[in-house]
This record gives sequence, structure tokens and C-alpha cells, in this order.
Amino acid sequence: MRYATVTTAEGPLYGIVTDDGFIALSPDFPQWQTLTDVIRAGALHDLARAATGRTVTHENGTFTHDIPLPDPGKILCVGVNFPDRNAEYKDGQDAPPNMSLFIRFAQSFTGHGQNLVRPPETPQLDYEGEIAVVIGKPGRRIPQSDAYDHIAAITLCNEGTLRDWVRHAKFNVTQGKNWDRSGAMGPWLIPFTHAAQLDDIRLTTHVNGELRQDDRTSRMLFPIRRQIEYISTFTTLHPGDIIVTGTPTGAGARFDPPRFLEPGDEIQVSAEGIGTLINGVEDEA
Amino acid sequence: MRYATVTTAEGPLYGIVTDDGFIALSPDFPQWQTLTDVIRAGALHDLARAATGRTVTHENGTFTHDIPLPDPGKILCVGVNFPDRNAEYKDGQDAPPNMSLFIRFAQSFTGHGQNLVRPPETPQLDYEGEIAVVIGKPGRRIPQSDAYDHIAAITLCNEGTLRDWVRHAKFNVTQGKNWDRSGAMGPWLIPFTHAAQLDDIRLTTHVNGELRQDDRTSRMLFPIRRQIEYISTFTTLHPGDIIVTGTPTGAGARFDPPRFLEPGDEIQVSAEGIGTLINGVEDEA
Repeated sequence: MRYATVTTAEGPLYGIVTDDGFIALSPDFPQWQTLTDVIRAGALHDLARAATGRTVTHENGTFTHDIPLPDPGKILCVGVNFPDRNAEYKDGQDAPPNMSLFIRFAQSFTGHGQNLVRPPETPQLDYEGEIAVVIGKPGRRIPQSDAYDHIAAITLCNEGTLRDWVRHAKFNVTQGKNWDRSGAMGPWLIPFTHAAQLDDIRLTTHVNGELRQDDRTSRMLFPIRRQIEYISTFTTLHPGDIIVTGTPTGAGARFDPPRFLEPGDEIQVSAEGIGTLINGVEDEA
Repeated sequence: MRYATVTTAEGPLYGIVTDDGFIALSPDFPQWQTLTDVIRAGALHDLARAATGRTVTHENGTFTHDIPLPDPGKILCVGVNFPDRNAEYKDGQDAPPNMSLFIRFAQSFTGHGQNLVRPPETPQLDYEGEIAVVIGKPGRRIPQSDAYDHIAAITLCNEGTLRDWVRHAKFNVTQGKNWDRSGAMGPWLIPFTHAAQLDDIRLTTHVNGELRQDDRTSRMLFPIRRQIEYISTFTTLHPGDIIVTGTPTGAGARFDPPRFLEPGDEIQVSAEGIGTLINGVEDEA
């Protein structure tokens, strides 16, 4: 079951995506304005039930994808989380004892099928394919053994980065990671119901059909269970919060010369059991 | 005029604080759930008008302060923004060309008069007195000359920090800056109407009556106009967003030995024309 937020001629709607199109469900649930409200109500399955036996309300081509949760809670991103990625930094440091974390705003993402936006200030727009998990149950100091119980759904992220702006200042990557619509999330949420959906799945990124990133979640330096444990040590996780779990080696910046994104490029981020997030690139108007 | 969000026996309310107490105004404005909605409607003056001639609805002692905007937009914080503060890092680097930025979640702040929370994981709770500005008008790539037009109100922040967790990982200060209720914001919003309210005002922090931080906004490495210009280069600022503008030298970590906060301490952050934000400290229950 694929839960999505889309824009149609009638405006934004949430519902379920099938191979044939979109089944609008938000008109049936006026108590929940957005898919985030549905997550907070723990009610994804109510949508699935309501969709039973229905045909699509909007055929393919009559809607565009938004980010699945247009109004999420906190978005925390894990940096440098695959073995070779730490080495990419070439700073002579061993793998760190704790994960690096940064925060992105929802407005830094666009939906599946939309173009990432390259701003006039820098040509260094880069891709980072990642898996994102959506929190469904609140918690603080969540032990690793319980961590998966707090995940409601999973999705994909192209954690698009303006590479030179990541090191624009003395500390922190904030400004390289938060350009409006520089990244993407989606295409949809897949309900998370069993550990095999996350423990050892393959994650790839293709640019114009060429494989650039290819790794498995089992190789993360800080596995997702550990991420939830560590983050919830300092901040209470709430339903609707999102953790973007880290990208494999192979971003454009690692090539010599670097291979940054340009208008006309197409980036595909894929993971087993979730789907494929596809985005183009455009220069900011 | 001091706009505040408070909790009373009837629950949370927004309104105006006077020397005698609190004038509840939210019951008169059901169209705006929170003070953030009022800011987004550009309607602070409507509250002021409604308060004319009224007496307090809640006397002092019958309400507690929440953070002024319980549901703000983005909260961006400027790091290392006073001359001696860069030197405090002792890393041999000159002042950076651009400001360091990090992000805090609203849940990392508590209101005026509440206790900051020291968690069991670390004793290194530290204070940082700062001025915060609340955006009232949207904008992207705002020139410095127009920057002040985008500020609706100003307030104070104790940008409480768990000092060892700031350097817990390879990059970024996220996890040292986002412990639940480790900082404070308030006591209230003061409408921003003229440049002299920000250009050269004195900002002090006292701990148990002892002056620890004392500087003037005119000495910022990156003045507030520049902050708005720089931040809005990459992210559209929206009404309800908050910029926390940087702390002077003199945080507890700079002393030898360091002087971190302990239960029973009282921290006062004051700025001319805004007021005094007072908080105690408690160990997490």
C-alpha cells in the first residue's frame, strides 16, 4: 500500500497510489487535514480499509506528487553513515564514535517527479540517495530493541546538497542542506510492519541511468535502530517526525573532477520494497 | 506592549502582560489559535487595540509563561557571532567569512520562569544569552536595507547548551543544542517598529546575580540585517520563523574550570527595551 500526497486540479489531496493512478481518500476523512494528521492518529490502516474495492479517482497524468508529509514534525538527517563515506572526507579521522546529525526544513524538499532547483548562487548541486523513516509512536530514550516499534512508515529521500555551502562557515552544514526545493522526498509512504523492510535492503542512486550509489542498509555505521536510540536520548520523538538515515558513497562531489547536477539530468533513488524516487533538475527561474 | 503565551487554570492563552498580570485576548480571536497565527496574520496591533482600557484577567501568580510562539516556524541560530567568542574556540582560525548556522526545535525551549532541565547523561548544561527576532513578512534574498521590514517582534533566548554533546560527533552541533527544555525563550514578544530597538542595545546574562555576559548588538560579527540577508539567500523566510542572533563571550564553558549550571541556579538574560528572561535549573525527574 502506497500512501501519497498529490496536487490535482482540485488542490492537494492524500490517498493511495496504484499502478493506474490515485485514489483520493482525504475527502472521506475531514478530521485529518494531511497525511501527517493520519500518522499522528495512527490511522494509516483506516485509509487502506476505505480504499478497498475502489477504483482510481485520478488517472495517471492528472496529478503531481508532493512530499508525502507536507507538514512534518522534525526532520533529522544522519551524516557520514556508510563505511567508505567517512573515508571520502580525507581528514585522517577514524569513524566517529557518534553519528553526525543535521536538520532540514520541509521546504528544502520537493515531491516525486518535480525538478530539484539549482540556485544561481552556486553550480554545486549534488544528490544523496537515502531511506527515510517516519515516526509513528512517541518516545524518549528508546532502546534499540524497541526502536522499530516507533516507525510508522518508510520512504525515500534525495537529500540534495549545495556542496560548497556545506562548508560555507566554520561549523555546521545547515546552509548547504536547506536550499528551497534542493532535495526531494517520496514518492509515497510504505507502512512499516516488519524488520526485514529495513534491516538489509539495497539502496541505489542512478543519474541519467548510470549507477552512482549502491549499498545496503546492513552496512550502515549507525543502523536505524541505533539512530532512533541516540536521537531520542536528547529529543522526544513524536509521530510525524522523520529521520533521513544516511547516504552511501558515490555522491557527485567524490568524482575528480566533481560531477554536479545540471538541468536536464534525471536522478533515480531506489530501494527494495519502497520504490523509486525520480527527479529532474532545473535552474531557478 | 508585551505579547505573551501563558498557561492558566483554563489552559493555554495568549494576550498581553502588564505589571499587574495578564490580559487574556485569545478568547476574543477564535480565528487565531496561537500567537504564531496572529503573527502570520500580521495582527499584533489588533490585539493591542482589543486590550485598550481592559484590566487584567489573570493576576500575577495565577499563570505561568510558555514560549511566546508555541508552534513557531523554523528556528535558525547564529553561532560564534561576537568578536571574542571566535577566539574562545582557540582553533587558530580567523573570523569566518560567513556565519555558522544551526537549527533548534521549539521543544528544546521552555518559558520564562520555568526551569531549564539538566539531563542525567551530562552535567555540562551551559547558558547563552541571546536576542531573538520573529519574522513577520515573507522573503527570499532580502537585501540588508530591507531586512528590518521583515521583523515583526523581538524577544530573548537562553540558548541553553549541553556543552560536551555539541562535539559528540564529527560535524554539527545539533545534539548539544536540542535537548528537551534545555533552553528558554521569552518572556514575551515586543513589537519591532524602529531600528534603534536592535542596532546598538546592551545584552547581559547574570547567573545567581553575577554578570557573566555583557555586550552590545553593535559589536556582532554578523549584524542582524546581514543574518536576514544571508539566511534568506537559501531559504525563504516566513512569518513565524525565528532567528536567534548569537551570544556574547562568557558562557560557563570558557571558565577554567568551567562553570556549568546546577539545580538551584538562576539565570537572567536581559536586553534594553525587551526585558529579562529568568530561569532556574532542575535535574530531569
